This record gives sequence, C-alpha cells and structure tokens, in this order.
Amino acid sequence: MAQENFVERIADIEKDFPQWYTDVVVKTGLVDYGPVKGTMVIRPYGYAIWENIQSELDKRFKATGHKNAYFPLLIPMSFFTKEAEHVEGFAPEVAVVTHAGGEELSEPLAIRPTSETIFGSMYSKWIQSYRDLPVLINQWANVMRWEKTTRPFLRTSEFLWQEGHTAHATEEEALEETMKMLGVYKEFAENCLAIPVITGRKTEKEKFAGAVATFGMEAMMKDGKSLQAGTTHYLGQNFAKAFDIKYLDKDGAQKFVYTSSWGVSTRLIGALIMAHGDSRGLVIPPVVAPVQAVIVPIAVKKAGVLEKCGEVKKILESAGVRVELDDTDNSPGWKFNEWEMKGVPLRIELGPRDIEAGKAVIFRRDTLEKNEYALDGIADTVKKLLSAVQKDMLKAAETRRDGRIVYADDIDGILKGVENGNFVKAGWCGCRKCEDEVKAKTAATARVFAEGETSKKCAVCGKDAERTVIFARAY
Amino acid sequence: MAQENFVERIADIEKDFPQWYTDVVVKTGLVDYGPVKGTMVIRPYGYAIWENIQSELDKRFKATGHKNAYFPLLIPMSFFTKEAEHVEGFAPEVAVVTHAGGEELSEPLAIRPTSETIFGSMYSKWIQSYRDLPVLINQWANVMRWEKTTRPFLRTSEFLWQEGHTAHATEEEALEETMKMLGVYKEFAENCLAIPVITGRKTEKEKFAGAVATFGMEAMMKDGKSLQAGTTHYLGQNFAKAFDIKYLDKDGAQKFVYTSSWGVSTRLIGALIMAHGDSRGLVIPPVVAPVQAVIVPIAVKKAGVLEKCGEVKKILESAGVRVELDDTDNSPGWKFNEWEMKGVPLRIELGPRDIEAGKAVIFRRDTLEKNEYALDGIADTVKKLLSAVQKDMLKAAETRRDGRIVYADDIDGILKGVENGNFVKAGWCGCRKCEDEVKAKTAATARVFAEGETSKKCAVCGKDAERTVIFARAY
Repeated sequence: MAQENFVERIADIEKDFPQWYTDVVVKTGLVDYGPVKGTMVIRPYGYAIWENIQSELDKRFKATGHKNAYFPLLIPMSFFTKEAEHVEGFAPEVAVVTHAGGEELSEPLAIRPTSETIFGSMYSKWIQSYRDLPVLINQWANVMRWEKTTRPFLRTSEFLWQEGHTAHATEEEALEETMKMLGVYKEFAENCLAIPVITGRKTEKEKFAGAVATFGMEAMMKDGKSLQAGTTHYLGQNFAKAFDIKYLDKDGAQKFVYTSSWGVSTRLIGALIMAHGDSRGLVIPPVVAPVQAVIVPIAVKKAGVLEKCGEVKKILESAGVRVELDDTDNSPGWKFNEWEMKGVPLRIELGPRDIEAGKAVIFRRDTLEKNEYALDGIADTVKKLLSAVQKDMLKAAETRRDGRIVYADDIDGILKGVENGNFVKAGWCGCRKCEDEVKAKTAATARVFAEGETSKKCAVCGKDAERTVIFARAY
Repeated sequence: MAQENFVERIADIEKDFPQWYTDVVVKTGLVDYGPVKGTMVIRPYGYAIWENIQSELDKRFKATGHKNAYFPLLIPMSFFTKEAEHVEGFAPEVAVVTHAGGEELSEPLAIRPTSETIFGSMYSKWIQSYRDLPVLINQWANVMRWEKTTRPFLRTSEFLWQEGHTAHATEEEALEETMKMLGVYKEFAENCLAIPVITGRKTEKEKFAGAVATFGMEAMMKDGKSLQAGTTHYLGQNFAKAFDIKYLDKDGAQKFVYTSSWGVSTRLIGALIMAHGDSRGLVIPPVVAPVQAVIVPIAVKKAGVLEKCGEVKKILESAGVRVELDDTDNSPGWKFNEWEMKGVPLRIELGPRDIEAGKAVIFRRDTLEKNEYALDGIADTVKKLLSAVQKDMLKAAETRRDGRIVYADDIDGILKGVENGNFVKAGWCGCRKCEDEVKAKTAATARVFAEGETSKKCAVCGKDAERTVIFARAY
C-alpha cells in the first residue's frame, strides 16, 4: 500500500530515471523552477543540504590555510580576452549587462561564469614580494553560465559554488595545492556525501579553458552515468602572464606566480540525489541531511504519546541530532511515505505500547530495516545508528560502482559497456581524433585518466596506448 | 613615536573623517576597489567580520523560526512594474542583462536590487491554504543598485546582505513579524556590534518603495551623522495583490496574505568602523572581530620566548578565542601599531621578564589600558577581558550618542544641532513640504520617529505637531 503511494507520486526509478529525478527534486521541496528559463529556486529543504555542505567544506578549507573573501559579480568583458583559451571557453555562455542606472554602459560587463580573471586583476595589485606568497583565497558565490538545456542542480544558468584561487612562488607549490584540494574534495565526497569518487587528470579536450591541467572527481549515478562532482585546475603561469601577476623574489628577480583554482557547486546536491535515491525517493546521508531523524507518533491522540515524543525530541536535540517531530494530523502511514520520500536517515516510531515497554521502533532509510531499541540511552543509539548509516551508504555505493567498472579493447566494447550503465576503462593513444570518435559512436566522454593503469593499445585506432582512460556517459 | 606612525598612514580622524574612513578601510586590508566603478572586493580581513555577523544573525533568524533559501539573481523587468511604487523606487538603479549566450534576450532581465517581486511570484505558487502559513524565509545574497557616488561598505553598486520575506494570514501577524525582526536587529546591533541604535518608524518619504510602513534602526557615527543600519518593512497586501498571493482560509474564503520584508547588509561593517574607530584606526568589538587577541613576543629571539607564546596561543585556541601570534621579524613597536590599526581587541605582550615572572602584559584596544596578568589562568582572564571590552564599547558608544541628542524648536535649531554633529529631535506637522524644507535648509533628513515622544509644534511651520522626529545628516 505504501508502495502504491510512491508510484502515484514519483516516476519509477527503474523505468524512467530522468523523470524520477525531476519528480523527486520538485516533490520533496528541494527546488522549484524560477520565472526565468533555466533558473532554479533552492527551497529551504534543498538549501539546508547546501548549508551543511558549506559548513563541512568551509571547515576543511580553513584547516588547510584558506581564507574567504568576496569578489565582484560583474567583470569587464575585456578581461576575458586576456587569456586566449579562457575567452573561447566562456564567452559563448556569458550573460551580459549592457545598461545600468538608466544608461548604456561604456563597456559591457559579464556576470561572472568563474572568477579567474577578476582574482587575477586584484592579485596583480596585491602581490609584490615573495613575502606575499602564497595567497590562498576562497569565495562562496553565485555564478552564471547561459545553458541551452537545464536541469535543477545539474545544469542551471545560475548556480551556487565555491571557487578557490591561489597564487604561489613555484610550480611545485601550485601543483601541490591543486592535488591537495582534489584530496580534500575526495575525502569530503566520501565521508560527508557517502559518494565514492574516482579522481584523476582530465584530457586536453575536457580540461578547464585556460588551465595547464585539470583534475576531476567523477561519481557514478544510479543509472551508471558519471557526474563531474568537482574539479581542481593547475593554471601554470597562464593567468599570471595575462594579468601581470609578478613578485620580487629573494634573488632580486621579478617572476610570474603560478596559480591554481578549484570549485564545487550545488551540483553536489544533484550528485547525492542520483547516487543514493531509490524507488521511494531521496536517501540523504546523515552528515548533510537537514533532518537526521524524524519522530512519528503512533496513535498521536492517546494520552502521553505526544508528550513522550516531545521528550525524546529534546533529548536528541541536546545530543546535537537534527530532529523533527511530526505532530500533524496526517496518518502514520502518510507520514512514513512523506519522510521516506524526503530521505530522512532515521524514523523513530513511538506508540503507547512502545512507551509502556520503554522502547522505540527505529527505521533506517538506507537499508529499510526496522528494529526495536530501548528508550533508555536513545541519544547514543541514534548517534550510533546515524554513523552506521553514513558508513554503510558509502560502502553500498562503492559496491554498486565497483561492480560497474568494466574494461574494453575496442570501440564496440566501450559502446556495450556504457549502454549497460558502466564506467569503461580503455586504452587511448592520446590523440583528439580518437577521443572524438568515442564520443561520436558511444555518447561517452573521457572522464579521467585511470591513475596507475596502463593499457597496451588504443581502443579506437589500435596504436600504442598512452594512458588508460575512464569513459562514461556523463551529466 | 607610535602616534607619528599612524599620522603617516591614516588621516586625522578629527580633521578629515571621510579621508580617515577611506584610509582605514583600505590600509587595514578590509576592502579594495574592484575594476568596475562602484564595486568593492571584500578582502579576507573584512570578509571575516561579515562571516561573524552572518553567524550571529543566522542563529537569531533560525531561533525565530526562519529558514534559509536561495532565489534567482535575475528578475524579469516586467515584475517590477506590478507594484507601482516599487518600480518607481528601484527602476532607476537597476542593472540590466540584455544579452546572454550570444543572443539578445526577448525580455531584459534585472539583477535583483531587492527580491520582493521574485519571492512574491513563488509565494503565489506555494501558498494555497491557511495551512501553508506563515512562510518565513530568509536569503543571504548579493544585490545590485547602480549608485552615482559610492564608498566601500556604505554605498556600492553590489553589496551582500540578507533579506527576509515572510507571508502571513493576518495583518496583526505580519506587523508582529515586522516589529519582532526590528527587535532582533536592535539586540544584535547592541550585543554583537556594540552599537546602540534608535529604532522607529520612518516617514512616508523615507519608507521602502512598496511598503505600507518602514521601520529603521539608526546608529550614530563618530562624526555625529546617522547610518541606517537595518530596516524592516510591513508590506500589507501590496505585493500579495501585485503577485496574486492568496490562500483558502478556514472559513472557505480566498484571501490575500500580508507580507513583510527585512534586511541588513555589509553596510554594518561601515557602521562599526565609524561608530568605534579612533585616531589609531579600527576598534572592532570582540564578538565580530576576526582576531580577538594577538600575541606579540618581546625579544622574539631570546630563548623560550616564541615557545611560550606558542603555548599561550594553543591554550587560548582551545578556549575558543580567535588568536594570532605575530612571529614576524618586524619590531614590537611596528607590530603594536599594525594590530592597533587593525582594531584587534586585546594585545598580549610576552617577553623574557614576563615569562620569568609568570605574567603577561595585556593591552585593551578600546580603552588603551595596559595591565599585567598572571599567565596562570590566562584563558579565563582573556575571556573575561573580551566580554568586558564588548560591554564597555557599547557603554562608551551609548554615552557618546546620548550626549549628542538635542532638541530644537525651529529650523535654525535643527541646523545648528546637526552642524554640531547631533541628532536633533523636533516636532513635525506630518506634511511632506516641511520635511523637504528641513532637508533643503539643513541637509538633514527625518531618520525615524522618536517613539513615545510628542512635541507641541512643528519646527518648520509652527502648526500642531503630529510626531517628534529625529533629524540627522545621514550616510
């Protein structure tokens, strides 16, 4: 019966994954469509996930020596032309302000699609000496990229993100930073979002416009497609030269700095939905769940039930658990469906008989298991369960993903692999033509290099392979 | 000698307050000018103050039942025309996106100067029944108002703020919300920023474009001018009617909701600079200070000094104090100046003799007092001092302000009052003509009504007074 209810409300995840996604994000109140095409309104339930993501990441950024700042939204269009690849990559997607304060502007202004250029222009002013280095700044901001096809969280004209921009005296330090932040992202994705990710370098075709090298982390969604969940870029001296960011070194010479940039966005919300969701709706990992446990009273009007529920709520709140008590007039069955759809990790059911027996029934959203626990020590029990859910969700996602990584020797193998919802590892000669051919014939793209692996032959042309590439269809 | 050093670096606060302000905000690293006219870059030291402001306010918003969300930056221009006063107030300041993705848009889009209209359009979709009310949402966002004359933090084309937007079933509830949030702002300003504020209703002329009534909090700066530090607006059914926000009431009737909105911005950083700063630079209240205590080693190279300083730093960090140890090669005198200019509430000086005696010298930035304290129990000592600084800064600011509130019976009295850097209370008949005349002749504007006070005669026309108004020159 409960299952029927879900079927009415959200599309079948097995039959129509895209529709399931759309139903889930809208009907759980995560997001709504904004009045301007391609924009989204992040509703309180969705924004609370973002706040938890922010707080976890921000801690990690600060622990690695970064400070937050805020740079302007509007960037002179001329800034983009200073770095040749950068303008080519971003100019077509830019939203442009041409009028302001009732007048036409003398120079059109871009709404930032990313902020390397404006950080660069300020760094060239702030950095004078080796003593000023490194500069390690991050910002939390909105950015805009005008996209033709949009989907909430995954691809919207405006989205929220963080962008770190750092400047260093040497190539080694800048590269170290690039790899360090990739590691921070990976640790965060695994331990907070319970999403196992594969990190590695990207091909020239897939790299950030203006970077020397881009490193990405790729997460497998439940349909076997990949989602790029974060990237770090080693920018070499490209932006230093474009914006004249120089420092006086100890040896008395003027040198260009080396820079890096790195970012993750509200896409991560889309990632966790598609990595963990099931036929009943969302399954949110406890660390970032807006509500970690919901208390559902059984026989809410029986004397003492609501009081006891309120007591348990207070105990859990004091223990730092994000808990809600659903004391509405809806039936327990309706509430079960609702909170399961919303992906709350634990449901605590409390009825007159439970209370009498000094027990509660706790339901785990991830495994759908239901067990009885003593009310005595309930805070400890809930905290232990939450951390078990967190760990088990990561393990389950790892198992799912690991069972879906296959190898291919030729382009047919790649096609078959991705059609069956796999990540496909295959040799690649390193040339753009072969990379393009894979995309044309399989709709899969090179996600990242499989670090530490070497194939013998390119799956496309049969020549000697330079790297092993992970191919997948991607969001 | 130390004083000379300041004189070199920042203008004399007594002689040139505006230049003092500009010198202080730039030279302490709070802010820099962005490449686009009228924009600012909030640098890490300034942004850290904003983070502390955010964290304090956000706690209070959530404790009063509000949730955060994120609404789109771009608003269709047509939305503004739906509320007649609103468009008149904001259209002239709007920045407009006309092109995006390489094409001209079919409808130009405004970068939000404020978000009543886009919240309104979504609320009309989300609110159906009395069960959906109240809706209590806040967002932290950037907004843009194209201004001719700009100054960092005080008036910039882009700034950061929070905007609360609420919808209620009744007028009473919406008004109660409007007043409640004014109270939250006042408590925050006094207890976190150590700025005493006068709250009250604004005149029709000074109210928010589209509001039924606006309430403001006004803070006195050191030059006697007023700074509007926050406002709350009772919007009645103006936006409900413009955006068709209706609900089905218990009695079966369709009714328009009543809405409120309220906001504070990065202006608050300007407020605390000008409310507390002195000839040496910033004086930052401990609650929002990025660094609450700085440890300056005396004879840094003497054996054991740096080690002991490091120990003290760890002790203070564990106690939750935001502390820095200045272990650079600069002289103690140079460091004293630097950290005083940056407004750090406490400086802890530790030299070989202090360490031997088990003592430290602690300097209070607010009172410029220096005293010896035992190293034993240093964390408690520092925490007590920080809370003393916080309270004493508020008291000092109250005393300063209270000594600068005067009464006037006529327009000459108002002029003399504001020329001497006072807030001037005067009777007002309630007509716009008299209000305009005050401005024309004194450059002062009606800040807020002096609640609970009634004057007999209007200071301008001599007719019966309707209210007592606080007039001041304002930022």
